[in-house]
Formats: sequence, C-alpha cells, structure tokens
Amino acid sequence: MPNTDNRSANIGVVGLAVMGSNLARNLASREGNTVAVYNRTYARTEELLTEHPEAGFIASETIDDFVATLAKPRTAIIMVQAGKGTDAVIEQLAERFEPGDIIVDGGNANFNDTIRRERELRERGLNFVGTGISGGEEGALNGPSIMPGGSAEAWETLGPILKSIAAVAEGEPCVTHVGTDGAGHFVKMVHNGIEYADMQLIAEAYDLLRRVGGLSVEQLVDVFKDWNSGDLESYLIEITAEVLAKKDAETGSPLVDVILDEAGSKGTGVWTVQNALGLGIPVSGIGEAVFARAVSSKPAQRGAVRSTVTSRPKAPEVPDTFVDDVRAALYASKVVAYAQGFDLIVAGAKEYGWDIDLGALAKIWRAGCIIRARFLNRIVDAYATKPDLETLLVDPYFADAVSSGEDAWRRVVGIAAASGVPAPGFSSALAYFDSLAADRLPAALIQGQRDFFGAHTYKRVDKDGTFHTLWSDDRSEIATTPSTH
Amino acid sequence: MPNTDNRSANIGVVGLAVMGSNLARNLASREGNTVAVYNRTYARTEELLTEHPEAGFIASETIDDFVATLAKPRTAIIMVQAGKGTDAVIEQLAERFEPGDIIVDGGNANFNDTIRRERELRERGLNFVGTGISGGEEGALNGPSIMPGGSAEAWETLGPILKSIAAVAEGEPCVTHVGTDGAGHFVKMVHNGIEYADMQLIAEAYDLLRRVGGLSVEQLVDVFKDWNSGDLESYLIEITAEVLAKKDAETGSPLVDVILDEAGSKGTGVWTVQNALGLGIPVSGIGEAVFARAVSSKPAQRGAVRSTVTSRPKAPEVPDTFVDDVRAALYASKVVAYAQGFDLIVAGAKEYGWDIDLGALAKIWRAGCIIRARFLNRIVDAYATKPDLETLLVDPYFADAVSSGEDAWRRVVGIAAASGVPAPGFSSALAYFDSLAADRLPAALIQGQRDFFGAHTYKRVDKDGTFHTLWSDDRSEIATTPSTH
Repeated sequence: MPNTDNRSANIGVVGLAVMGSNLARNLASREGNTVAVYNRTYARTEELLTEHPEAGFIASETIDDFVATLAKPRTAIIMVQAGKGTDAVIEQLAERFEPGDIIVDGGNANFNDTIRRERELRERGLNFVGTGISGGEEGALNGPSIMPGGSAEAWETLGPILKSIAAVAEGEPCVTHVGTDGAGHFVKMVHNGIEYADMQLIAEAYDLLRRVGGLSVEQLVDVFKDWNSGDLESYLIEITAEVLAKKDAETGSPLVDVILDEAGSKGTGVWTVQNALGLGIPVSGIGEAVFARAVSSKPAQRGAVRSTVTSRPKAPEVPDTFVDDVRAALYASKVVAYAQGFDLIVAGAKEYGWDIDLGALAKIWRAGCIIRARFLNRIVDAYATKPDLETLLVDPYFADAVSSGEDAWRRVVGIAAASGVPAPGFSSALAYFDSLAADRLPAALIQGQRDFFGAHTYKRVDKDGTFHTLWSDDRSEIATTPSTH
Repeated sequence: MPNTDNRSANIGVVGLAVMGSNLARNLASREGNTVAVYNRTYARTEELLTEHPEAGFIASETIDDFVATLAKPRTAIIMVQAGKGTDAVIEQLAERFEPGDIIVDGGNANFNDTIRRERELRERGLNFVGTGISGGEEGALNGPSIMPGGSAEAWETLGPILKSIAAVAEGEPCVTHVGTDGAGHFVKMVHNGIEYADMQLIAEAYDLLRRVGGLSVEQLVDVFKDWNSGDLESYLIEITAEVLAKKDAETGSPLVDVILDEAGSKGTGVWTVQNALGLGIPVSGIGEAVFARAVSSKPAQRGAVRSTVTSRPKAPEVPDTFVDDVRAALYASKVVAYAQGFDLIVAGAKEYGWDIDLGALAKIWRAGCIIRARFLNRIVDAYATKPDLETLLVDPYFADAVSSGEDAWRRVVGIAAASGVPAPGFSSALAYFDSLAADRLPAALIQGQRDFFGAHTYKRVDKDGTFHTLWSDDRSEIATTPSTH
C-alpha cells in the first residue's frame, strides 16, 4: 500500500514494538505533533493503525516513503533493540537524510556506540542524538524521563518535541539536554545502575523483615505502603507493595513465593560497574547488586552449597525497633548508592568532556523514570546549594539523614551477619561510608606490601615525594621517581 | 659495538629493565641455557654485562644482530611495559623471525591483546606465547610462577626452558601450559585479582585487630608471624609481618604509620572484575578490594566526609577470642575469594575455548608467585578429587574450614559494623556465602518488580515456562515467550 497521505510529519518513529508504539502514541497525543511511523514488517504498522486510529499516524510501507513524509529538518526516533540492528536502521535513514536532519536513537545503546555513531554522522552533516528513555512501556506511553545527548543544534528542534511527551514533575518536563554525543546514554546507564542498587536494597529489607523480623507478606505490604508515605516515597517502594500484595491465582500463595528466585539482567548494570572500574569510581553498591543477581542465577552452585551447608544460624532476637531500623538502613544505603552513581557521572563528564548539570539531571529523574522518588528533590537542592559537592554524603540534609539512622544501620548489618540472611548491599554501603569517614585506612599496609613485593613505591604522610624501602637489601629508604612497571 | 660473539643462544630476552634483567640472569644461571639480550638503549645492556659477567650473555646492539644470535627455532621473551610498546617490539621480531620461531610476551598484557596477537602471528607462521610471570623482581631472578598460553608446538620448545627457571614446589616446577592463545594472561589476570582480595582481607584483619582489638603494631607482628605457621601460611602473611616490623628511620614510628594510606593499582584488578561482570561471575570479594583501593585514593572526598561526620561509634567490647575470630574470618573470606577466582577461570575457559586443568594451575601457584600459600595444596587436592567441583566451598576440606570458623566470621562482621571500622571484604564474602546457602533469595521480589515495570517476565517454582502478570490490566497471569526488549 503506497502512502497517499498528503500531510507531513514533524517527527517519525522507526520500530513499532511495544516501546516504539507507545512512544509514537504519546507523541501523537500531544498538541502540535504529527507522527510518521515505520516498521520493517508492515503488518505490525497496520495493527497499530487499526488499534489506534485516534493517533492520526502517517504510515509508510517503505523507508523511502517514510522519509518523504517527514518535514525538514527531518527528525526520526529509532526504537529498535540495541546492537547491530541499530546501525542498520541508522544507515537506512542516513542514506536518505540531508544535512541538518536529525536521527535519534531511543534504545538502550552503549554510550560508546553512541559516541562513535554521532561522530560518523556528524562527518556526514547529520545530527545524531542518543537518548535515554526511562519509564518502561507505561512511561513511554504516558510520559517518560528523557535523557538526550547530541548537539545543541539538534536539541533546538528536538527539545520542544521531547518536552511535549515527557513526564512532568512540579510543572517541569522531565527532559534536559544532558550533554553532547554519548552523554544521554551514559547517564541512562548510570540511572539503570542506581536502579539495580535500589532494587537490591529493597530486596534485602524485605528479606530481613521476613526471615529475621518474622513479618508475614501481608504485613510487609503495609510496611512498604507506610514507607511510601515518608522519606522513602518512590516508584520502586510503591510497586514493591503492589508485587507483594499480589496473590497467585493458582496456588493462593503470595506471587513472590511462586516466582523463581533467579534474577535476570539486561546489561546496563554490568556496563555501569565496568565503566566505573575503568574510571576508578567505587560504585560498590551497584557492584554488589549486579553480583547478587549473578549469584541468584547459579542454581547448580546454590544447590551444591545448600546440600553441603546443612546447619544455618538461628535468627537472633531483634529489637522492637527492627522495622524502623531496617527503614533507616535502607535509606542510608540508598543515599550511598546515589552518591556513588553521581560520582560516576561526574567522572564520566570529565573523561568524555560533557558539561552535565547534576541538579538538572536530578530534576528530570523526579518523574517518569524507574528511580523516581521524593528523594530526588533533596538531590536537586543539594546541587543547587553546591554544584561542586564532593559527595552527596556531605550535603547537610543527607549527612543528617545518614547520621540519624547510623546506629540502626549498624544494628541491621550486624543482625544480618548473625542471622545468615545476606545483606551485601547494606553492608557494602556501610563499609563505604566508614571508609570515607576513617581517619586512617589500612591502604597504608597495602602500599607497604606492594612496595615489598613489587617495588611499587609509596608516599609518606610527612613529606612530598615517592619512596621505596630496599626490602631485600639493608631495608633503608630511598627517594624514587614513581615506578612505571 | 658489533656483536662478535660466535656462540648462539637458545633463548633471548628483549627489554632489560629490572624484570627483564632478572629473568635473563635467572635463565643464564640454569644449566643448558645460553641467553641473548637486547635493549633499545644499549647503555642499559652494557650496564647489565658489566654488573653480571658471570651470566655469559650474548649482547647485541641492534635487533638484527640479536635475531642472528638465536638458534632455531628462535625463541625470544619480550619483557617490556604492557601496551603499545609491546606491539612495536613484536613487529620488530616478527619481521625477522621465520616460520616455527617463537615470540613470548612476558609482560602483564591484557589477554584480549594476547588473543589478537597470537592470531595475527599464527597467520604469519609464527608462534606467539603470552605468558603470565608472577613473583615480582625477586621471583623473576630466583624462580617465578609462570603461566604460558600459546600453542602446543611452542610449548614443546619453550616448556623445558621455562621449567629450568621456574620456582619449585614439592619438587615440581611452577609452570604448566595453561591453555591456548590468551589463557596464560587470563589466569595471570585472575591471579592478580585474587591477590587484590587477599591483600584487602589481610588489611581488614590488621585494621580490626589494631583499632578495635587494641593491639599494638609490635603485637601485630607476632600475630601475623603466628598465623604464618598455621593454615594461613603464605607469602602475603609473611611479608605483612615484615612490613609491620619495619620502623621508619626518621621518625622511629612503624613504617606503616608513615606511609600515606592511598593504595595504588596497575590495572589487572580492574580487568579481573570487568571481565567477571561480562561473564556473569560474581567476584564480589575482588570487586570490593578494587573499590577499597579506589576509595582510599579519593583524598578530597575523604577529607570532606571526615569534617562532616564528626561523631564516630565507640569501639565495642570484643570477646577474648577476638584475635582468633579475626583469623577465622580472614580464612573463610579467603576461601570465598579463591572460590570466586576459580569460578572466573572456569567461565573464561568455557568462553574462550581453553582446556584449563584447575589442579595443575593451583600447583603452579604454590611457589614463586605473590599468592603462594599452603592453602593452594588444599585446592590441588580439591580438584584432584573432583575436577568439576561446583565451587571450592563444597569441597569437604574447605566446607569444614568455613563451617568451623563461621560463628567467628559472623561475630567479626558484626563487630566491624558496630565499630565503624570498614570490613568490605569480610562482609561481602559472608554475604556471598549466605546467598549461596540460602533456601530462597529475594531475587524473586526483584523478578516481580522487573515484571511490573518492564514486562521482563519471570519463571515459576512449580512449572516450566515464562510468565507475565498483566499488572496494568486485570493482573491475571499469562504464559509468554521470554521477553527480548
């Protein structure tokens, strides 16, 4: 069916699986947008047209027709699975687009790919914008949080369109021009890393309250609902209550008891930690969360250990304040996870030359995305007060929050260790906090060991320079230039 | 000075910095070896000749002369800093070598580079062997642990030479043909990752005994000496006692108190964790060790947190058994770190097609290398008994060792949390153990959350298949094919 539509579209969407369809519908529902759609398999396009005539889509069967329907500067958002497929679709558009036109990748691309693609297309005179879109299918339809990178020129055209479909938090659309080239996909990656940590911390809170605190799943629904009316108010806490409240129709048990306890993942958590390692940023909270999912997905090892370790510790007595203690541990650990995530963004911005406004970023995460939370307002405030904050942990509000929950946090980590209920996220976050707060770290001993076996040299607390002890000689100390081997 | 030596060499060394010189001297000291040496700057070569006439080196001023002195099949070990320099030196040799000749890279190369180089040189008819060499300068001179990859053909020539210089453990040289292409550098990377974890755990033990247990540095020297006569006997424990015993000549203080507490790193720890993440192997103990060094090296953040967090917890009362408790925690955590490291080797072997004998690997780590330890004999036994062991934690010896120290381990993690002395390694290892031992993990809740916000689907405990709850519809459950977005 040739496209006989005479209208032209200010925006096009390529790829009409759930995320793409929902985003296209969201775009079409907003004043001023006319949306062109294209899918490799035309049947899917026809299905969408039939189901949603109200959207007034301009549909094309071929990529040529699709491109012909776009008004200049042509602007098309690609919503296909990240990877090689993305390059193929980009090339199809790039061959047909003209200088100044804009290709947007709305998938979960690796920011390194985005940097490469932006450079290649820029050399051909085209704008390429890699953008993070968070909020899942629901968000795509009703208002996601949107994190575009790319050039300022592209943002001029694209900004108003994205603002029209983004979630709104306190009157402001949840979209900002994050930075050039791969900045958008980088911060989306970190967003997802923080999401991993947040989910792991909630899971630990649930597990401790249930297995050590003895709360029933029904009681836990109330606990999470209650928490969602306070400082912890967030989408993830809200849906935790929803998931826990769900009864399995077949067995009558809580659904959570019927779900296999092996957590999957899609790559952005792994990328976050790999990049943090490369940049020297300790994102231990995210790391433990990614590793916890990996451990859960090793049924053979788990089975072998379960049949070997036959005696488990008895759950210790817990204080009457246990529910509140766990809440405090969760909150403090969450502050740590966000502090680490924001440190990674600062390091990424420095490494890749992006000018990222951390306050603006916290703002666009307040609605639409998976980690949306009341908490984000506090982060907005923190960076408004001090844009070059050394770490979120020293912002007065967060320092107070952690300090007031600190004793409870320590109790919970101790109880977890005693009871045999794993709390890698809580304990890792506490160790990170205690490491930053320590007057001295045993890293000095590690430097001594490294100097002993590898002549790696060390610095001294009392004077400048680099030193080495002649360990296999007379053990005197010499000043050196830094070792390079 | 042209080379007027009429002898020919069975082995050559390129790059005569400390590691290369020491390895060349080691080679020259063994019966049957004649060693050719070459360095870009000839002055360094002359220096070596003057200092060590006993070695009988065949020295060349040019790479052409160097190659001419090598008997066929020509065999040369490159000992230059890993990176681009290595490619340049490889190319210099490759241009002059003939089919069947052997180029060995003894630096700390990334195994991905080694895989690439081996493939490129194989296509040119040359053998390329990337080999891990551990033991530092001392080991290079007196007997390192050597982990060569590369082809079986190269091993035929190279094996006897490497056996002649390797450390010896219980009568056996610490070298084995690990596997093809990059296998040697891969296991050397994991060796170093385990080394990071081991050093971090020792550092935590030291810190807890000193800051919570109240032991003096002098007392700690005795503790580590004592530990070195038991199950924990190892090079790293031994040198810990040496480092702690060292007094700074200027101040009279223990050297460890004069060393700046910011730990450096050279890359292999980071690589280990990055690769483990990519392969889905939870090496949390190594991850926390790498992150702990990163935290220590953030003086601005540490300073900011120290001036914000003014009140620190009081060290709690510790049991009389505290020294022994910490020893047990250290031992159990060390078992976890090795278990994770060996899991990574299994995963790497599977991913890259290497046939790695884990028992043989444990054998060659018993002497020469930095992680050499009595402990390794137990690992040799474990894999001799069961080559496809699911995890070291289920080997009867290690299961007993962990089980007998388990209560102490839990106490120590609790005391660390209460006292504010960071123990990320101990607590992470315990959480890993408890995760594997758990009947149920809260990963089920995470799967529920993922299904809620991203339709990621879940599996059930009671039947096969993949399922999704229609959360934003009537919340009934449907069977699905696995989600791909």
